[in-house]
Amino acid sequence: MGQRVLAGLRVMELGHYVAAPFASRLLADLGADIIKVEPPGGDPARQWGEQVGGHSLWWSSHARNKRCISVDLKHRAAPGIIKRIAARCDAVVENFRPGQLDRMGIGPDALRAVRPGLIFAHISGYGQTGPDRDRAAFGVIGEAIGGLRHLTDHPPGTSDLPPVRVGISIGDSVSGLYAAIGLLAALWQRDRNGSDGRERTVDVALTESMLSLMEGMLPEYGMLGKVKQPTGGGIATAAPTNAYPSADDSWVLIAANSEPLFAKLMTLIGRPEIIGAPGYRGNQERVANVAELDRMIGEWTRQHTAVELARILSAADIPSSKVYDAADIAADAQYGSRAMVRTVDDPFFDRPVLHPGVVPRLEGDADDIRWPGPAIGAHTDAILQAVAGYSAVEIDDLRRQGVVA
Amino acid sequence: MGQRVLAGLRVMELGHYVAAPFASRLLADLGADIIKVEPPGGDPARQWGEQVGGHSLWWSSHARNKRCISVDLKHRAAPGIIKRIAARCDAVVENFRPGQLDRMGIGPDALRAVRPGLIFAHISGYGQTGPDRDRAAFGVIGEAIGGLRHLTDHPPGTSDLPPVRVGISIGDSVSGLYAAIGLLAALWQRDRNGSDGRERTVDVALTESMLSLMEGMLPEYGMLGKVKQPTGGGIATAAPTNAYPSADDSWVLIAANSEPLFAKLMTLIGRPEIIGAPGYRGNQERVANVAELDRMIGEWTRQHTAVELARILSAADIPSSKVYDAADIAADAQYGSRAMVRTVDDPFFDRPVLHPGVVPRLEGDADDIRWPGPAIGAHTDAILQAVAGYSAVEIDDLRRQGVVA
Repeated sequence: MGQRVLAGLRVMELGHYVAAPFASRLLADLGADIIKVEPPGGDPARQWGEQVGGHSLWWSSHARNKRCISVDLKHRAAPGIIKRIAARCDAVVENFRPGQLDRMGIGPDALRAVRPGLIFAHISGYGQTGPDRDRAAFGVIGEAIGGLRHLTDHPPGTSDLPPVRVGISIGDSVSGLYAAIGLLAALWQRDRNGSDGRERTVDVALTESMLSLMEGMLPEYGMLGKVKQPTGGGIATAAPTNAYPSADDSWVLIAANSEPLFAKLMTLIGRPEIIGAPGYRGNQERVANVAELDRMIGEWTRQHTAVELARILSAADIPSSKVYDAADIAADAQYGSRAMVRTVDDPFFDRPVLHPGVVPRLEGDADDIRWPGPAIGAHTDAILQAVAGYSAVEIDDLRRQGVVA
Repeated sequence: MGQRVLAGLRVMELGHYVAAPFASRLLADLGADIIKVEPPGGDPARQWGEQVGGHSLWWSSHARNKRCISVDLKHRAAPGIIKRIAARCDAVVENFRPGQLDRMGIGPDALRAVRPGLIFAHISGYGQTGPDRDRAAFGVIGEAIGGLRHLTDHPPGTSDLPPVRVGISIGDSVSGLYAAIGLLAALWQRDRNGSDGRERTVDVALTESMLSLMEGMLPEYGMLGKVKQPTGGGIATAAPTNAYPSADDSWVLIAANSEPLFAKLMTLIGRPEIIGAPGYRGNQERVANVAELDRMIGEWTRQHTAVELARILSAADIPSSKVYDAADIAADAQYGSRAMVRTVDDPFFDRPVLHPGVVPRLEGDADDIRWPGPAIGAHTDAILQAVAGYSAVEIDDLRRQGVVA
């Protein structure tokens, strides 16, 4: 069994909901020791989604591979505990409002006093600086201000319905990915330079994380005044690529916007005369004629079931897929072959829980789902003793005072 | 001026389109030396989006901070050149089809023969193993198979329109983020262990990158058989949070799904009696009554313009925002204050180009946009000489043979 790539890294999570917990889950999945500090009532995310016997199914995967300690951060004795843990950590990931940790006595200055060089990764709605830094924000707000929500819609004039939310907390997750990147980059620089004691701070904003994915939107607006608009099921810069209806009322994606793929597809749908014809020569011409192109392709797809389409398109090596839901994913052979859909024993439930696998996959690394999302305070004693160096008597005392649980 | 966090890291990009180029752009923005190997005709992404004077505006930001060398990988002399560059690199990021690099004589075995311990980060549609590894895939396919497309839609029965594509290449970008995480984790482990010569391989699939973001979808399906469905503008697990119409036909997001925020919002819309009323006590009760709740809030928002709503909601410290487009983003003071919307001189254009800033932000790091997306082969000579050690005479010869340009 190989060693996990991040074995030896210890990170304190002062997080709740999605963004910071997702960042540290990424690190936990790769073998880091994550110490998640929770209030006595637990992370509110424990209440989210479907519950069975009072326990969240999402929590089972959202908090897996972490250790959980319960500390009442409002208690006057809390900063002392947090400092003793921080003294043994490489980094902190947090998503309180900017400045909130300082007000609680556990901000960067306080923790670096006991642990010089401690890396901080902050995640917030708008960032740690600037006129909006104190504004309240959730993931959907970051998505709207980052430009994603505007682009996730049908073309203007198509429908009266509001722009659609991507069905997941994409702003939080992408912020978490960026925080992990910043933290690992800082960590590499720190250890490469032989622990130089420099203060490394990562400052991730939900808004900016989204903006960073907007491709040509800003360059094109700045130079041409072009305000990028949503394109429904298609892509503004490539054609043909869209979701097409099948005979049995499913949607099938077809992406054939390179020259060889386009030629194959036109042959397949019985329109070989389109290949190289005026208006369809090269991607830019096809983008201009995308409505007509989508109509031709849709006429053909409506004559076949989703299963038939999958077979025909796959045989022609044209990128395509049924639009998968949870059941399709759970049944998919490719996911199964790569342990990307797997069962995990969880003491909260009487049957194993279905988890997504570990991403990114590192060849040769040890099996990586060590345990499911823990109970509140499941590792309070272990962390206080082995990490922070409290005695059993001291821990009993802290528990009696109501600082830890 | 501080040193960039990834200064000293050199990565070869054997990439095209979005996923691998985005991964290496992330590293380039943080100070890594990225050597992008392009075919003589250039990365096809150079043709994407709006062109001015034959040059892509997106390219200006998509390829910034990289060095570009043009090599015809089909030429029999190409592997020798690639090997001499790889010998001086820490890592390779690539998104050819699985096995394609091996067929061209520049796969992991060939390059590790000249550079033991070279880290490989592969990005592909379905991953490097499994029954589907050879299937063609683009970002939208990965998004569909990962479950994102199904969830990015109005609730079943609301509309006949197809599920919407997120308006950007989200599958490619998220894969790129994961590849960067895997690469940095492997790099940290390598250097921490004193260059142990181990082979570290990161294997990122578009499909799996999307699946990893699906939150409670798999656990809830596995235990309860529940197939997660799209929820339009709302969130299945939290209420109220949606896009609401303004008097002047804009959309305004309001996210007030915590207890204190919900109470504030109900007071604001003149419905304080709802606070603590049956059906609205706690998030789970509110989720069950989300349609009625959204109706009440929408009645109120329709009485105000988007600007008024922004002012009222901000004064009450309730997370909210107009749904931003490119023009809103370019004008935003917060982005401006954090250099997240900035102009960059680009010799391809007669005016500076608007770029998004560098994410993640590292405090104290040097100013980070060093140059815009280069011309094809802009750094061919510099790389062949200073990195690979070819003489000027040898380079002339390679150019005459048509191997480099």
